[in-house]
Amino acid sequence: MIIRSVPGPFAFEVIATTGDCQARRSRLRTPHGTAELPAFMPVGTAATVKGCPPDLLAKTGSEIVLCNTYHLALRPGESTVQSLGGLHQFMKWPGPILTDSGGFQVWSLSSLVRIDEEGAHFRSHLDGSPLTLGPERAMEIQTALGSDIIMVLDECLSHDSDERTTRTSIFDRTLPWSERCLRRHPRDGRALFAIGQGALHESLRREHAKSLRELPFDGFAIGGLSVGETGEEFRRMIAASCEELPANKPRYLMGVGSLPEILDAVALGVDMFDCVLPTRNARNGQALTMNGPIRLRNRVHAQDNQPIETGCPCSTCTEGFSRGYLRHLFMAKEMLGGILATVHNLQFMQRLMEGARQAISAGHYDAYRRERIAAFRSTADR
Amino acid sequence: MIIRSVPGPFAFEVIATTGDCQARRSRLRTPHGTAELPAFMPVGTAATVKGCPPDLLAKTGSEIVLCNTYHLALRPGESTVQSLGGLHQFMKWPGPILTDSGGFQVWSLSSLVRIDEEGAHFRSHLDGSPLTLGPERAMEIQTALGSDIIMVLDECLSHDSDERTTRTSIFDRTLPWSERCLRRHPRDGRALFAIGQGALHESLRREHAKSLRELPFDGFAIGGLSVGETGEEFRRMIAASCEELPANKPRYLMGVGSLPEILDAVALGVDMFDCVLPTRNARNGQALTMNGPIRLRNRVHAQDNQPIETGCPCSTCTEGFSRGYLRHLFMAKEMLGGILATVHNLQFMQRLMEGARQAISAGHYDAYRRERIAAFRSTADR
Repeated sequence: MIIRSVPGPFAFEVIATTGDCQARRSRLRTPHGTAELPAFMPVGTAATVKGCPPDLLAKTGSEIVLCNTYHLALRPGESTVQSLGGLHQFMKWPGPILTDSGGFQVWSLSSLVRIDEEGAHFRSHLDGSPLTLGPERAMEIQTALGSDIIMVLDECLSHDSDERTTRTSIFDRTLPWSERCLRRHPRDGRALFAIGQGALHESLRREHAKSLRELPFDGFAIGGLSVGETGEEFRRMIAASCEELPANKPRYLMGVGSLPEILDAVALGVDMFDCVLPTRNARNGQALTMNGPIRLRNRVHAQDNQPIETGCPCSTCTEGFSRGYLRHLFMAKEMLGGILATVHNLQFMQRLMEGARQAISAGHYDAYRRERIAAFRSTADR
Repeated sequence: MIIRSVPGPFAFEVIATTGDCQARRSRLRTPHGTAELPAFMPVGTAATVKGCPPDLLAKTGSEIVLCNTYHLALRPGESTVQSLGGLHQFMKWPGPILTDSGGFQVWSLSSLVRIDEEGAHFRSHLDGSPLTLGPERAMEIQTALGSDIIMVLDECLSHDSDERTTRTSIFDRTLPWSERCLRRHPRDGRALFAIGQGALHESLRREHAKSLRELPFDGFAIGGLSVGETGEEFRRMIAASCEELPANKPRYLMGVGSLPEILDAVALGVDMFDCVLPTRNARNGQALTMNGPIRLRNRVHAQDNQPIETGCPCSTCTEGFSRGYLRHLFMAKEMLGGILATVHNLQFMQRLMEGARQAISAGHYDAYRRERIAAFRSTADR
């Protein structure tokens, strides 16, 4: 179902719940239109979903795009984006945009120098220049970019951090930083989401969520998961977080992920997801199908005239690009291979989420989840 | 003017000539539809115009695409293309396709071992495997690929070859090879074009053209130009060739080129062109405008909200992608930069050719040529 997208101040509404698990169907409104949840948000790190022009992106059914504050602040700089009309005008994406705070990239990409109360002091991964990212600066950048959904700056932790380190990080850094972000929130119809941390300590996940829910955030993210923990730990942390978070606010699991992870998290009550894997893997020649991923470079596809997935409504499949042609493009290192596979994989993710939404409305989401995961795992990686 | 494309056996018709020079407006018919001439043919070396999905390519006004026999024979191999339905089905390009013979790539890309009567013996630039390309094999590959316009195998020569070397090459190799290609021509509605050579020897250019015109080729190419000769030499060789070629057959200047070269050659009676420059330069951040090329990486564009060229009907310009955004994409090495600039540059070439066709019909082509060249050279490269 596609509904007419009406822009307005940020709002969130649960439309349906399902009896067999905690999954819920909901809808976001933002100053740049609405989005149906549970949703997968393609990642447009540098104000472009790699290999996918925005009109093709819209045709995949994608409704919200994530952009990376860290990358855009370094290049071209938020003032350039602002002077070119803000992110939506800059990248010609008229729909909702969520920006992360840049915290995760400071930890993962830059040379981190030190963290103190002020923020994170680091060196740019582009030119080594010294920079500081604190909560006020994170808000300033995201506000200038023109984001619809702004994320607080949090401190990122290794998932194996001990309880004491994790507690200190949450209550001495992330929580005060979150409150400082709230004070800089423009309150002009855009949303500000907090991020719950807690490594793999269930009690801390709960404590942090309880602290955050007392504050007037528009939504809550769950951070620091899908980074090496077991599936059981992953699900336990999400369940604990969702139990403590308010039912009337959206929940966003950051940086996740694979089909089973997303479907499991939806069952536990998560509404929003982002991940680079569907697009990154597409550029590396891995295409997603309901029966599992296929490797387009494999010789078995060389003379295969079938589309990636029969019945797939994406433009790559409906326009008749064959597996044989796609294999050729990847073998010849032609850009078009990445473009066509990206479109397919994004439409795959949106089909998956649309199926989830319909299953929730029909009251049998958990059966959908089990079926889809079983089918996805049924075939060895080809 | 866009006419309805009606497929049929190869045919060529001159529609208009212009009083002020030798330019002519004409139309080709091929088994995959018609094309208005003079035409610029984008190069789709490996069965894809780099960075340009076929639906976007069609929207640029491009009507014929050139594919490289050498590349496709090596990878994926013509039998694979054939088993996947032939080039049109393989690359989802429904319009006319011209294939070169592979001769030029054997000379320029491979390790050429030796040339004898049989053909060129060389080593693949991909894996070093020893291969032979003779006239029969060149015909076999192009026929299997499903080309609409097949090129004979010719011997390529350095433009500074002396008269004796050039004469031997033409009359001991290229002419006999061309006759052998004719004997293998499928004669099923597809065209076979000969290639005139002669280095920079006007008398040999004339002699070769005269020899070829006696044979039942469907069209005639001019090879071995725009490889380092002066502009005066370039124009003199083209004029000599066109004077000797029959008026009722199309003339194709291979691998050319720049705006001034193309417009000059049209004035001398050439109908068809191909060149990688508009697409290769696009991927390197050079965009074509009627006032000359611009370098999108230049800092001057950083905060420029204008399209590449105001009034340009290409999707990149009409959808509002700014020079500032394009500069950002190129600085960040994002694929979308190359995609958007490729679409613009191809539409630029088609706009240029459409202007040429209209000017011919209106009887003032030479004025059009002079104006366009002057405007293109008016502004220093930005």
